[in-house]
Amino acid sequence: MIVTVTLNPALDVTYRVDRLRAGGTNRVAAVAERAGGKGVNVARVLAARGAEVLVTGLAGGAGADGLRADLDRAGLPHRLTPVQGSVRRTVAVVDDDGEVTGLWEPGPVVGPAEWLRFAGADFPAALAGATVVVLSGSLPPGVPADAYAVLLRRAARLGVPGVLDADGEALRAGLTGRPALVKPNAEEAARATGAAADDPAAAAERLRALGAEAAVVTCGADGMFGSADGLRWHTPAPRRVRGNPTGAGDAVTAALALALAEGRPWPEATADAAALSAAAVAAPLAGDYDADLYRELTHHPMTTPQENR
Amino acid sequence: MIVTVTLNPALDVTYRVDRLRAGGTNRVAAVAERAGGKGVNVARVLAARGAEVLVTGLAGGAGADGLRADLDRAGLPHRLTPVQGSVRRTVAVVDDDGEVTGLWEPGPVVGPAEWLRFAGADFPAALAGATVVVLSGSLPPGVPADAYAVLLRRAARLGVPGVLDADGEALRAGLTGRPALVKPNAEEAARATGAAADDPAAAAERLRALGAEAAVVTCGADGMFGSADGLRWHTPAPRRVRGNPTGAGDAVTAALALALAEGRPWPEATADAAALSAAAVAAPLAGDYDADLYRELTHHPMTTPQENR
Repeated sequence: MIVTVTLNPALDVTYRVDRLRAGGTNRVAAVAERAGGKGVNVARVLAARGAEVLVTGLAGGAGADGLRADLDRAGLPHRLTPVQGSVRRTVAVVDDDGEVTGLWEPGPVVGPAEWLRFAGADFPAALAGATVVVLSGSLPPGVPADAYAVLLRRAARLGVPGVLDADGEALRAGLTGRPALVKPNAEEAARATGAAADDPAAAAERLRALGAEAAVVTCGADGMFGSADGLRWHTPAPRRVRGNPTGAGDAVTAALALALAEGRPWPEATADAAALSAAAVAAPLAGDYDADLYRELTHHPMTTPQENR
Repeated sequence: MIVTVTLNPALDVTYRVDRLRAGGTNRVAAVAERAGGKGVNVARVLAARGAEVLVTGLAGGAGADGLRADLDRAGLPHRLTPVQGSVRRTVAVVDDDGEVTGLWEPGPVVGPAEWLRFAGADFPAALAGATVVVLSGSLPPGVPADAYAVLLRRAARLGVPGVLDADGEALRAGLTGRPALVKPNAEEAARATGAAADDPAAAAERLRALGAEAAVVTCGADGMFGSADGLRWHTPAPRRVRGNPTGAGDAVTAALALALAEGRPWPEATADAAALSAAAVAAPLAGDYDADLYRELTHHPMTTPQENR
């Protein structure tokens, strides 16, 4: 079982309007709600790949009901620690021309007792039977900046390797927890390491120097740069795909977590991740991927027996 | 006790942004949630005037929790009939220049059993001990167009006079339920009666001919036109007030419902309503009013002993 951690999940809300009139009143024709946040997206991809998953994290208020309801609909097992503040909503207003206006609520403020209940009790309990834990996304206010390092150390003591996908201080401090793999994008990696923005290979090296056992830096159409076990490699993007890049990084994280769980070598894992990422771009919603395109792009289908469709 | 009915309540959400970038991603700096819908606003004003109130209506989904939580915070007693669909959210995006962009979700679709549970059981039960019932606002999809007429007849059988504030078919069909008072604005009255838009006095007459015992038509800065008991009258607006006109009509409804409960004559009641309406415009949120301005504008303070601040 792969456990995903989403400390700042979201309820992704889509509003359909004919045209967004700023300064006017817009009647919303249709409303769709979906559980979101990077860890939730990773879990969706993993479940579609046939992996057993458990969604954990913090979720409170009225938004948590909507979140749990959608996870149930998606068949994703979850064990979310309740908090006082409400799950943030990310509202995407989509007009008839496909233009998207985003409105991102801030996360709830998490209290110290809430954080300790997760870190000290619910998180270790959820790791029973886990092969890998995935920590991804932003930290809500109130959670300590080194939250990911705390969780990674706790997981390591329980023998569960961790995958980290974060940005800024959460990433930098998280590296001290010695993740088995860190997977930022090129900008995030440059920000965290001080490496030049156009040198993702150097950033991957530095991520390892800062604590990660392995590092994969994603560069969109330029593919991925990896560093592990004294090895450096580059995996090109398989094909330029038009679509929605949101969630492509989460597909990469899912593929790499799966490879870690199965003990497959990283270069092979990143080739699989690149195919899954392109297939995710081709799917309209974050957390989904185009299964046909994924099959078509996968060079070694026999190495991914978890693919169930 | 005055019972208010809100069949399509809302969770009024305010998003603060520095500037709304259409087609971009906007980080929301602050989120505020407040129970809304015309009947809720009326209840707020009545409670501030010292009246005992009960908020009733239909409310489901995650939004209903937010609605009930805010009613509790405001000290407004409520008995909302649960429905499957979620309470609609009306999102007001307010930028640093005060420009407001509204995003109005559609209401939930109400099932026949849900409507019958309210109309046949919860509504009559809520009327025990009521002196007046206020029916206001739009009808959610699934509720019959003559819903207000059904409720008015049921209330009349229980000896409770009704105040109706609605628009379109809900208003037109509602009139056949013979409300003790109907209070549309000039546009709504013209639409429902076919009277000329610039002749609110004639519209008031026609509203009575269509079933209302008394009619008050509000005309913003032009005051109100009333018709009852063979009498026609005009109440000028006391003063031009700058502010937020949303909720001013609900303040008028509240003042008139209070007068009906106390048996005060309509012309006196509309003078009070005009003062309360102006005081509501001066308050930033619908359902609130500026108590100092209200006191200043009220010519006969001794006739409104319910004013508690």
